[in-house]
Amino acid sequence: MMQDIFHLILRAQADYARCIDDDRLENWPDYFDDPCTYKITTAANYRDGLEAGIVFANSRGMLIDRVSSLREANIYEHHTYRHILGAPSILEEIDGRIRSETPFLVVRIMRGGETDIFATGRYLDLYRVRERGPKLVERIVVCDSSRIDTLLALPL
Amino acid sequence: MMQDIFHLILRAQADYARCIDDDRLENWPDYFDDPCTYKITTAANYRDGLEAGIVFANSRGMLIDRVSSLREANIYEHHTYRHILGAPSILEEIDGRIRSETPFLVVRIMRGGETDIFATGRYLDLYRVRERGPKLVERIVVCDSSRIDTLLALPL
Amino acid sequence: MMQDIFHLILRAQADYARCIDDDRLENWPDYFDDPCTYKITTAANYRDGLEAGIVFANSRGMLIDRVSSLREANIYEHHTYRHILGAPSILEEIDGRIRSETPFLVVRIMRGGETDIFATGRYLDLYRVRERGPKLVERIVVCDSSRIDTLLALPL
Repeated sequence: MMQDIFHLILRAQADYARCIDDDRLENWPDYFDDPCTYKITTAANYRDGLEAGIVFANSRGMLIDRVSSLREANIYEHHTYRHILGAPSILEEIDGRIRSETPFLVVRIMRGGETDIFATGRYLDLYRVRERGPKLVERIVVCDSSRIDTLLALPL
Repeated sequence: MMQDIFHLILRAQADYARCIDDDRLENWPDYFDDPCTYKITTAANYRDGLEAGIVFANSRGMLIDRVSSLREANIYEHHTYRHILGAPSILEEIDGRIRSETPFLVVRIMRGGETDIFATGRYLDLYRVRERGPKLVERIVVCDSSRIDTLLALPL
Repeated sequence: MMQDIFHLILRAQADYARCIDDDRLENWPDYFDDPCTYKITTAANYRDGLEAGIVFANSRGMLIDRVSSLREANIYEHHTYRHILGAPSILEEIDGRIRSETPFLVVRIMRGGETDIFATGRYLDLYRVRERGPKLVERIVVCDSSRIDTLLALPL
């Protein structure tokens, strides 16, 4: 049972990362429940209980808007990500709601080919198991470094 | 069943990476079926349907030759790799043939100790389950960056 | 059975990494049996059979002392780690003792936000399954690069 939950989350995380890395951003909101919380913050702010995140959304609609803006504005230099995720830790499972934590490393590849570590950190997730698979009720992206590129174009 | 296939591929990928990172290159061709396709290409070329890869082999013999050349020529500066792989996504399973995709990050460590990100990307694999374990019928290594070191000595 | 062992070790490795990355160093010795061997060495020294490691401990008490020193001295610039681990390879399982190998990448994040690859390598582990979970009888941390920051403050 525990292994089944572990696999469910492991696969969900891999799918989420592929969606972004394959530049299928229009599908990205589908990984969330509605309403939902999506927040990017830093380890320092998270530890100090500061609510303000770098990015914040509380509905699937806001995520969809975010993607639209990215596609339309297109002011940022084109780049792609490569997510490398560690194994999730399942912290809690109650009534089809699963709390987990997953470490991540995101490498950014610029159009010119330059490759660098864009961010490291951990996903603090609350998944809800729906008929169509697990959906993110909450994802707090806690970045290790406080020096996050403020343009922060693509989702993490 | 799905979890069994997932584990089979997960372990095969880890073994493959260890083989290279441990500098047991002579064993590397054993991970392939015969005939087989091994190709290294870039995301841009792959997306545009360009067939020309940076590296191409279509038999185990060609892979063996490649290792021999590496060992004999030895013109490149000595270095090792460290593969860090994400969880594979199982895309299809038909009659013992498994199509999967696995994200990778390869760090290169030069003899002098310098460590850098050598490549990121994804393996597009077709495995065939044989008696002695799963064998690669096809591995297309799609590198995210177009700026790949053309010497590209060790296998990815 | 093999999958159960794989999961046991996979989860133990993830827990170990979280403990360090969350700066809960006081819990770090709990991942070890007593007596135990904890050693950090380089690939070159390990290959040549050189016993001298960069760090060496053979009891839980020594690990506890190490953490105390780190907390008290506090002479090093504050930083955190982010471990990204590959899947473990289970090499042997005899009477509740499990030998495994796990590739790692450790990113270091300095207080100022600078992020770099601190170390890559592999954990050569001997776990013993105890009532309270698997404990490390031996962990040899083999770093790929010989150029390891000699201050080497946090555990790997």
